[in-house]
Amino acid sequence: MNTEQNEIFQRGDQGSADYFNGTAWVKILVPKDQTGTYGVGNVVFEPGCRNNWHTHATGQILLITDGKGWYQEKGQAARPLTKGDVVVIPVDVVHWHGAAKDSSFTHIVITNNSPEGPVKWMERVSDEEYNSLG
Amino acid sequence: MNTEQNEIFQRGDQGSADYFNGTAWVKILVPKDQTGTYGVGNVVFEPGCRNNWHTHATGQILLITDGKGWYQEKGQAARPLTKGDVVVIPVDVVHWHGAAKDSSFTHIVITNNSPEGPVKWMERVSDEEYNSLG
Repeated sequence: MNTEQNEIFQRGDQGSADYFNGTAWVKILVPKDQTGTYGVGNVVFEPGCRNNWHTHATGQILLITDGKGWYQEKGQAARPLTKGDVVVIPVDVVHWHGAAKDSSFTHIVITNNSPEGPVKWMERVSDEEYNSLG
Repeated sequence: MNTEQNEIFQRGDQGSADYFNGTAWVKILVPKDQTGTYGVGNVVFEPGCRNNWHTHATGQILLITDGKGWYQEKGQAARPLTKGDVVVIPVDVVHWHGAAKDSSFTHIVITNNSPEGPVKWMERVSDEEYNSLG
């Protein structure tokens, strides 16, 4: 079990159980950029933690800084992620991201704002869905 | 002399001598986000390297991931930077950033686009200016 992460940013607050299945830590770094287009944050997922299925009306970018995790779009194979990977999450695509079973996982998020909010949360990623990965 | 960095991203190409005084490595991670508002990259400065004085017409955000460096706005005291620091660079403010004399320095950049380009380059930070820092 690898729970050591290169802790670049402070851990912040625990992510809400309404959106995270497991323990995650969310730190807001820049609430809103100078153009009002996006916000920047950092998320640390403990092993086995993942967020719910969700969409972004104007997209999101993930910059993976440590650990091992997953990104999965609905109906697609899950993509394994590690340090240095970048994910450009398309507009309105249903997806989730989170840690591997045996490792913590840390990523920076750049989340574009939209009139209807930056994210629309949906149902949990079930244990059956998560346990079927790699 | 600390030249060891936590190399999260690939080093990319060497920064142009027109804009960098010393050796820097620039990796473009996302050329343009889904809204067309910004691009994302990573810059590694070797010890003593700094970029020229410059401005951003719609701002830039720096996320420092390793090493020791500086951010200075024209006419202001230089701000020392290290891992976990975040700099929100205001619109049209003349500034530079770069490594400390005795350490490499790595930051992610989120650079907002503008009709006149993301950056306007100016003169070099002189040795006199740089050597007067802490």
